Amino acid sequence: MKHVLALAVASLVSVSASAAEGMWTLDNLPTRALQSAYDFSPDADWVRNAMRSSVRLAGGCSGSFVSDEGLVLTNAHCIVGCVQGLSSAEEDRLNDGFVAGSRAEELQCPAEELNVLQEITDVTDRIAKVTAGKSGREYIDARNAEVSRIEDACVAGEAQERRCDVVSLYAGGQHHLYAYKRYQDVRLVFSPEYSVGFFGGDPDNFNFPRYNLDMGLLRAYENGQPAKVEHHFRLNPAGAQPGELTMVTGHPGRTQRQLTVAQLERVRDLDLINSLLLLAERRALLAQYSRGGEEAARQAQSDLTFTENSYKVFRGQLQALLDPQVFAAKRREEAELRTAAESSTPWDEIAQAQQVRRTLYYPHMLIGQQRAFDSRYFQFASILLRGGDERPKPNAERLPEFQDAGLTRLEQTLFSKSPVYPEFETVKLTHSLTKFRELLGTDHPTVQQVFGGRSPEALAAELVNGTRLGDAAERERLWRGGKAAVDASQDPFIRLARALDAESRALRSRFESEVDAVEGRNAESIARTRFARYGTGVYPDATFTLRLSYGEVRGWNELGNDIAPYTRIGGLFERATGFAPYALPQRWLDAKDRLDLDTRFNFVSTNDIIGGNSGSPVINRNAEVVGLAFDGNIHSLGGSFWYDETLNRTVSVHSAAMIEALDKVYGATHLVEEIDPVGAR
Amino acid sequence: MKHVLALAVASLVSVSASAAEGMWTLDNLPTRALQSAYDFSPDADWVRNAMRSSVRLAGGCSGSFVSDEGLVLTNAHCIVGCVQGLSSAEEDRLNDGFVAGSRAEELQCPAEELNVLQEITDVTDRIAKVTAGKSGREYIDARNAEVSRIEDACVAGEAQERRCDVVSLYAGGQHHLYAYKRYQDVRLVFSPEYSVGFFGGDPDNFNFPRYNLDMGLLRAYENGQPAKVEHHFRLNPAGAQPGELTMVTGHPGRTQRQLTVAQLERVRDLDLINSLLLLAERRALLAQYSRGGEEAARQAQSDLTFTENSYKVFRGQLQALLDPQVFAAKRREEAELRTAAESSTPWDEIAQAQQVRRTLYYPHMLIGQQRAFDSRYFQFASILLRGGDERPKPNAERLPEFQDAGLTRLEQTLFSKSPVYPEFETVKLTHSLTKFRELLGTDHPTVQQVFGGRSPEALAAELVNGTRLGDAAERERLWRGGKAAVDASQDPFIRLARALDAESRALRSRFESEVDAVEGRNAESIARTRFARYGTGVYPDATFTLRLSYGEVRGWNELGNDIAPYTRIGGLFERATGFAPYALPQRWLDAKDRLDLDTRFNFVSTNDIIGGNSGSPVINRNAEVVGLAFDGNIHSLGGSFWYDETLNRTVSVHSAAMIEALDKVYGATHLVEEIDPVGAR
Repeated sequence: MKHVLALAVASLVSVSASAAEGMWTLDNLPTRALQSAYDFSPDADWVRNAMRSSVRLAGGCSGSFVSDEGLVLTNAHCIVGCVQGLSSAEEDRLNDGFVAGSRAEELQCPAEELNVLQEITDVTDRIAKVTAGKSGREYIDARNAEVSRIEDACVAGEAQERRCDVVSLYAGGQHHLYAYKRYQDVRLVFSPEYSVGFFGGDPDNFNFPRYNLDMGLLRAYENGQPAKVEHHFRLNPAGAQPGELTMVTGHPGRTQRQLTVAQLERVRDLDLINSLLLLAERRALLAQYSRGGEEAARQAQSDLTFTENSYKVFRGQLQALLDPQVFAAKRREEAELRTAAESSTPWDEIAQAQQVRRTLYYPHMLIGQQRAFDSRYFQFASILLRGGDERPKPNAERLPEFQDAGLTRLEQTLFSKSPVYPEFETVKLTHSLTKFRELLGTDHPTVQQVFGGRSPEALAAELVNGTRLGDAAERERLWRGGKAAVDASQDPFIRLARALDAESRALRSRFESEVDAVEGRNAESIARTRFARYGTGVYPDATFTLRLSYGEVRGWNELGNDIAPYTRIGGLFERATGFAPYALPQRWLDAKDRLDLDTRFNFVSTNDIIGGNSGSPVINRNAEVVGLAFDGNIHSLGGSFWYDETLNRTVSVHSAAMIEALDKVYGATHLVEEIDPVGAR
Repeated sequence: MKHVLALAVASLVSVSASAAEGMWTLDNLPTRALQSAYDFSPDADWVRNAMRSSVRLAGGCSGSFVSDEGLVLTNAHCIVGCVQGLSSAEEDRLNDGFVAGSRAEELQCPAEELNVLQEITDVTDRIAKVTAGKSGREYIDARNAEVSRIEDACVAGEAQERRCDVVSLYAGGQHHLYAYKRYQDVRLVFSPEYSVGFFGGDPDNFNFPRYNLDMGLLRAYENGQPAKVEHHFRLNPAGAQPGELTMVTGHPGRTQRQLTVAQLERVRDLDLINSLLLLAERRALLAQYSRGGEEAARQAQSDLTFTENSYKVFRGQLQALLDPQVFAAKRREEAELRTAAESSTPWDEIAQAQQVRRTLYYPHMLIGQQRAFDSRYFQFASILLRGGDERPKPNAERLPEFQDAGLTRLEQTLFSKSPVYPEFETVKLTHSLTKFRELLGTDHPTVQQVFGGRSPEALAAELVNGTRLGDAAERERLWRGGKAAVDASQDPFIRLARALDAESRALRSRFESEVDAVEGRNAESIARTRFARYGTGVYPDATFTLRLSYGEVRGWNELGNDIAPYTRIGGLFERATGFAPYALPQRWLDAKDRLDLDTRFNFVSTNDIIGGNSGSPVINRNAEVVGLAFDGNIHSLGGSFWYDETLNRTVSVHSAAMIEALDKVYGATHLVEEIDPVGAR
């Protein structure tokens, strides 16, 4: 009995995709499985249309065009940064919602970028050629230089409109060039009140049944005009029926399904536990700050949401990795691969690199990744300082984030008019400085250097009181002035960033050569073994590039109870208590009588998605939007490591509910007309 | 090589004590080891004197008599509760320190109890007889009833002056009756400023080198007069030299060195991870509350200290249990024992009970142990409600904490004049209610019942605004009025406690019968196997009863660096920065020139101690106090699960520094005279 059970678990984590498992690149769709399970064979036009109608929000979400004038459908929670940046104590668009009554009322997001995939090219051979026989720093440098050359050639000097990324797939087994059309003038069209976009808040996050209008609309602009786009999806309010094929095209951020056992143990014991403990503190800190009043709550809102969400994700991941059965299955799979491989050196070297990770963990995180300084001011200072040093270098020699492809996005961050709140920054910074001292110890030389005998509170106050980096004009002056201007600056955050720069770069470099390079090189080798054994009918781990996942609308069984796949708008009103996060905005209360309460609101499907997929369209075989993915159920959190079709579910807003709400709650008939739902005429 | 290393680790966790390992009961000292290692053979008088000079602080610390007029030496951090209870916004004795200039100035602690062990009696056979052949609820009830009978007979109606506890040792393998002399009138004599008693604060906690005057003085009173005590230790400012035998007599709270592997896995994956995540939030919450101003900081101070300390302890324990080598050694030891045992049923049943623990974890913690309601108000309400229901029952049938032996301590808690701060209580309660809803889910029936649609904020505010339990007189009225008065009360906290009482009791009872009873019965069986195999030369896990640990003053090697065993008072001034927690009180700055900066301040020794030992005397073979244990080094945290002589160290205040500080900083010559240090005349 035990043996049978173990095999059943093994199949869940097997490399060969089963059922709805898989986040497939669009140049390698699981055509046979789609054909046999759903009698569906997408042709090249279908695929091209799906690809070019799908949108990536560069900040970490997905979306899709839903009109030929660049209207983009995504989640409300994906545009919180934009909306918060367009809000202030006087005009709270995040909580009050926003509907642009006309094009003229659409508001430019302070820092937003959209990418639309145009083409995929295999460049594996070019990378393999320059890295052959190299290791460590040399390997990294050779790879980075070639990547930069390929990307430069692809961008061809049109960085404002084109973005080209060399993507490492199958843990380095393949390298593909992804060429995107790029939009950097992105405007806010519609955002619901936070309380309905995120109804149920943290308690209901990753839960189902669910009642969220987690939708938002942006618009891509070109030359100051709404972008004319060749491809877009139409929205079908009929939605999808139980068992009907649903596909999600979006940008899953990261899965770790092909890690070795040593890496998974490190993820569990080092990364997840430490991240969770830090997030737990940050969460309580922000929550308590928020209780200081409405304005404080507003300032902390998006940070708190982000922190609570990350906490829940990591908590679910940790719980998944604490399951001894699943670990046993991973072990068996690895043993099988090791036997098939020419040597077990790749696994051994990866295991050794985990020890380096453990040793470097705190310094790398705190100083290398600069988490000791949790403040937008420090982020600005670091970009300015390194921008001054890096931009004069030839493109290929710069730190990757300062290469041409990334500069405009950095500038968006830097020049953003989104207000900076000194008191709030002081609170976050004080806390991260406290952790810095705690985790490295009072006697650590860098701690001594940074604190100079002061307390975290005193140091944070001194930095924040002394800085002018809260002023976008000052940031722009320093950026435009380049290295000379930055060197001349006595701003305390820039001085701090400068004092730590050498050590921070050294830690990053050491991590890259002793960890990343070792893991990368050996993962490639393991990937080759995997290919040899299982063929090409597999999908790569997620990399925040466009993927298609297929599945169907289906509930699941939770401890003996069947969970129905749909909720209805009426349920929203039943669940509302009047107290946040279960309080409905007045506009909804007023609209109740006008609404068809029987309208399907949210639904679950078996699609295999992960963070980054938020905002993805759920489409049917006619490439019509039947839903808008915004979450997974609680079981989906183990999806980082494997897919379990019996439990893992995608949670989406139903297409009917989106139209119903735009029309009857927000009176946005002009938007409904532009979206032009199937069957509306 | 791997095999040799594994054996070396195995020996660390072996059941047979080696080197300085062991927390020995005073009726079973490791006489042969003491004789052979230190040429020391304590006789019966020595042992009786050590026993009766050692003091237990019932709240969870240790101490010792250092004069024949009941003067008790313990840690400053052990009396924080007392000092905070005697502080207010106007008179901040916690931060400003306190020295009673005369007996008349000594202040009664709001809730403090001292116990002095008088006698140990073996009652194993009595318990075995009544529990023979029983299991589950029946086993628990039979055991509890017999324990209650034994304790009642021992107290013999003198509950004010005698306390008798049946202690389960060797995981239930033995039961001993511990009879204590009891002092419930305890007064504050001396407490240093918090900033020097806890110098270095959380960052330096569990670290060394260290510079803390973590000492405090209480006095036991009887009939309104200083207690005349027959036994006390003298203090020897010469201290102990490196390599010299040092013994700690104190009350280690809990070790878990004899848990099965299944239990250790549960401790790691369930208890420690969940507790740490909750503590991390509570810590950040309290820290942020504290930043609201001096008075807020003062209100939260002892809770924050306690939370930070627990966090660090659990973090260290978790880190220890994440070491795969140590787990492997525990596995080997268990395999050995299983082979020696008649059957492996005990291990299997314990493993099954861990599954029950997992299932019950959140409801038991939140509702059974009432952690959903983190507020003194709720604590009061629960005592009042259950006190009303339990006290009319025959003693043996009550919940253990409401049996006669515990009533006076409950009354101390209840009638304490220590101020209750409504805003602070609201903050803690709001947070714990938020966790309650999060961890059980919004749809859990008890959550629904408690919240009634309200938010955690609204509910907490409603409860706190409506309660009168902040008033000690009201609490006393309800307690004296018994069940009738409590039943008549409409206080919202009492109503809440009443609404949850049946479920809370049921969860507790289920946990006792399905977990505690199963673990207890099987641990007894394993303990018998262990005895049979390893004989009686072993010590039981800690149980907050008096133990002696022996060792010697010795530094250790930290990653290649030798850590010297002593610090000096001069180092305190060098480490001080002027910013908390490295700020010295003015009294110390003023005294600097008078102090002998070369005086030994803190030191480390190989004694095997654990939380609960705080405040223990460190004595030499002449039963002279040479130090005051207040901490362990960071490696000592793994001491919950095993003892590692190469790294595990006790950290103590040196006897010379105590006298130097009392004399030259605090001008407390009357106390120095009373203590009458060896060599002073």
